[in-house]
Amino acid sequence: MSDPHARDPLKRAAAERAVEFVENRMVLGLGTGSTAAFVVEALARRVAQGLSVVAIPTSEHTAEMARGLGIPLTNFGEHRRIDLAIDGADEVERGTLNLIKGHGGALLREKIVAAASERFIVVVDDEKLVDRLGERFPIPVEIVRFGWQATAAALEKLGTKPELRQTDGRTFITDGGDFILDCPFSSIAQPRQLEQVINMTVGVVENGLFLGRSTAVIVASDNGVDVMTPGAGEKA
Amino acid sequence: MSDPHARDPLKRAAAERAVEFVENRMVLGLGTGSTAAFVVEALARRVAQGLSVVAIPTSEHTAEMARGLGIPLTNFGEHRRIDLAIDGADEVERGTLNLIKGHGGALLREKIVAAASERFIVVVDDEKLVDRLGERFPIPVEIVRFGWQATAAALEKLGTKPELRQTDGRTFITDGGDFILDCPFSSIAQPRQLEQVINMTVGVVENGLFLGRSTAVIVASDNGVDVMTPGAGEKA
Repeated sequence: MSDPHARDPLKRAAAERAVEFVENRMVLGLGTGSTAAFVVEALARRVAQGLSVVAIPTSEHTAEMARGLGIPLTNFGEHRRIDLAIDGADEVERGTLNLIKGHGGALLREKIVAAASERFIVVVDDEKLVDRLGERFPIPVEIVRFGWQATAAALEKLGTKPELRQTDGRTFITDGGDFILDCPFSSIAQPRQLEQVINMTVGVVENGLFLGRSTAVIVASDNGVDVMTPGAGEKA
Repeated sequence: MSDPHARDPLKRAAAERAVEFVENRMVLGLGTGSTAAFVVEALARRVAQGLSVVAIPTSEHTAEMARGLGIPLTNFGEHRRIDLAIDGADEVERGTLNLIKGHGGALLREKIVAAASERFIVVVDDEKLVDRLGERFPIPVEIVRFGWQATAAALEKLGTKPELRQTDGRTFITDGGDFILDCPFSSIAQPRQLEQVINMTVGVVENGLFLGRSTAVIVASDNGVDVMTPGAGEKA
């Protein structure tokens, strides 16, 4: 873990495999983060070879990168449904393929894109697999700035210690202008109930639990690339 | 209804009665809208007479008005809990005292303030009373701008025809930078379920249903001012 790029070959391999699912004339959703960046690169190569697609990016960062690599962008004004979204994740629960996302700060747009997609393919290396969500990562909760202290106090009653996300000594602000509270929950036995009480908390915009949204998870490990589907365990 | 100020004497009477509940040294929440403006005026008179309070406003508009009238303002950085919030409403359901709010566009901050308050007093004239929520007003739903068309499409599946709020020919933007979809539901039999499915819709920030939050509703009619409490019907 000391070298942040040590897992890059695995991420790249998983990204390449994910992009094989892209078909001509698809409307795509493009995620945000280090793995999603490899997806954008792999997709750009196929576009350069003649693949015709349009894509909705989940962050300004991904938008810039895609533009620079010649991937035509679109938006929800043109297309209300997405055929296929591809994104990374912070944690993937084995079996359910439920996710925690948002470490990169783009969870809101990523969730909007995932919710609008027919298929949602997640790309990770095997370090992201967990037996239960929450083992390693807190749940990022995007909240409005007004009254954030009261919102944090309300979330604390759910049994977590929310931490206001900071970057370089400053409060992190999302693309939507909100704050993020990182809420550790150790091992999450009932993610659907938890998601509901979090989202019913006044001041919460969205949370990083992605439940029942993955149609496939592509996992790269030293042994190769596997495609997992919900409930089906692993398959080649 | 042709004269927008025809109900002003009733609103003023209800506001005066509400402000009688304010006690020295309280932290107050101040609502937004035409009725809330009478509350601010009535409160300012008591402050001028020596009442010592601090208040958290729910909009820039209310903040300016309170400042101009000499009411000391505070924020959630100083106070995480509010003793008493006073606000108007678009609809009040008899018996339950559940509300629809948000016609003025400040529902998000109003709901954050209501959620953080020990007591929440609602001030209306009797035209706002309904037998069932939704009879007259749509539910305002505050949504993030990114992907708003997809969010509207998702809400449409709940059986409503969301309308993007416009003011003076432009899309209305809230204090938080969001859009509002006005979602008519005619008569709402199960508001708690509806609130939940609305809030679980990705892209939704908050909605204008205020359920189980009113500790009292002050209603002015031509017959005088009544104070209603939840489940208790009307009492003097």
